[in-house]
Amino acid sequence: MDALKNRIIKDGVILQKDVLKVDSFLNHQIDTAFMHQIGAEFKKRFEDCDVTKILTIEASGIAVSFATSQFFNFAPVVFAKKGTANNMSEQSYHSSVHSYTRNQDFVVSVAKQYLKPTDKVLILDDFLAQGEALGALISIVSQAGCQLVGCGIVIEKAYQKGGKELRAQGVRIESLVRIMKMSEEGIEFC
Amino acid sequence: MDALKNRIIKDGVILQKDVLKVDSFLNHQIDTAFMHQIGAEFKKRFEDCDVTKILTIEASGIAVSFATSQFFNFAPVVFAKKGTANNMSEQSYHSSVHSYTRNQDFVVSVAKQYLKPTDKVLILDDFLAQGEALGALISIVSQAGCQLVGCGIVIEKAYQKGGKELRAQGVRIESLVRIMKMSEEGIEFC
Repeated sequence: MDALKNRIIKDGVILQKDVLKVDSFLNHQIDTAFMHQIGAEFKKRFEDCDVTKILTIEASGIAVSFATSQFFNFAPVVFAKKGTANNMSEQSYHSSVHSYTRNQDFVVSVAKQYLKPTDKVLILDDFLAQGEALGALISIVSQAGCQLVGCGIVIEKAYQKGGKELRAQGVRIESLVRIMKMSEEGIEFC
Repeated sequence: MDALKNRIIKDGVILQKDVLKVDSFLNHQIDTAFMHQIGAEFKKRFEDCDVTKILTIEASGIAVSFATSQFFNFAPVVFAKKGTANNMSEQSYHSSVHSYTRNQDFVVSVAKQYLKPTDKVLILDDFLAQGEALGALISIVSQAGCQLVGCGIVIEKAYQKGGKELRAQGVRIESLVRIMKMSEEGIEFC
């Protein structure tokens, strides 16, 4: 998606070699008009899929999912909540995630009533790197017995293992941009 | 907003006398079509205002704000992040919040670059009860020297002090529904 590449080049900030900040339009301040373009692009990529539910994770997946829902007949968006093992209840599906950015583990959960075996689920998230968060969402879809139609990612760090490992397991992943290499000098896309 | 009252009566769940769960359409699963109606209603309430930015707080304010942004010429949405005092940086505005639900304090922060003195800010949130979160967002708008055009709330618990205290300070608050009384037997709206 060229518009996204250009936006990342224009507004993205690279910190400490491996951190790409896109705070100005994606995950702190949200450019809602641009999110509509992203939603339209996900529609193109998953046009063949009959999506009944969009699953994401708080907080930065919510805007992307909201924008995309409008292109899938307003399919409801469910966002997994982050918490600790203490918050786990029998009414929810859970999966644990290791955050490499923060070097800590947390648990993501979704109330069982919002994912039914008849659901066809599209998972969306802003970033894919090590694949921890995405793996947890896929596990929750599997626990619920839903059909996973695929995963849509705004920015994939293709030099990290997440995308490769999950694709090897047969998961369909569509990333709007894939970064091959990144350093303080700039970004190379795949 | 009658559609919202009816939706709360139909789908809201009251727990422990004072907890209203609207997880099925507002803050875990999101009914994105219904959020559009909510956005349109906020547009009506703040039609006279020239809004340049919408400020909210993660995570459940994001969908409401996204939906509303479309009715204000896609004004950017900024969501305050929740963290602890350890995460505070000089590049951000901060305000502390006491959560009565969780009985703990946390810090909300917004990067300084996303709120400019020329901004006319509409604050949006899903709930108003004790007014802690809303007060923190108002403080951040004030620290940034922006003009606060008003606050839009989806559900106000009018029997708690937040709305009353903030209105007494001259803050314009528009709540789409106001709950006068709530118990396991049901809800009375103002």
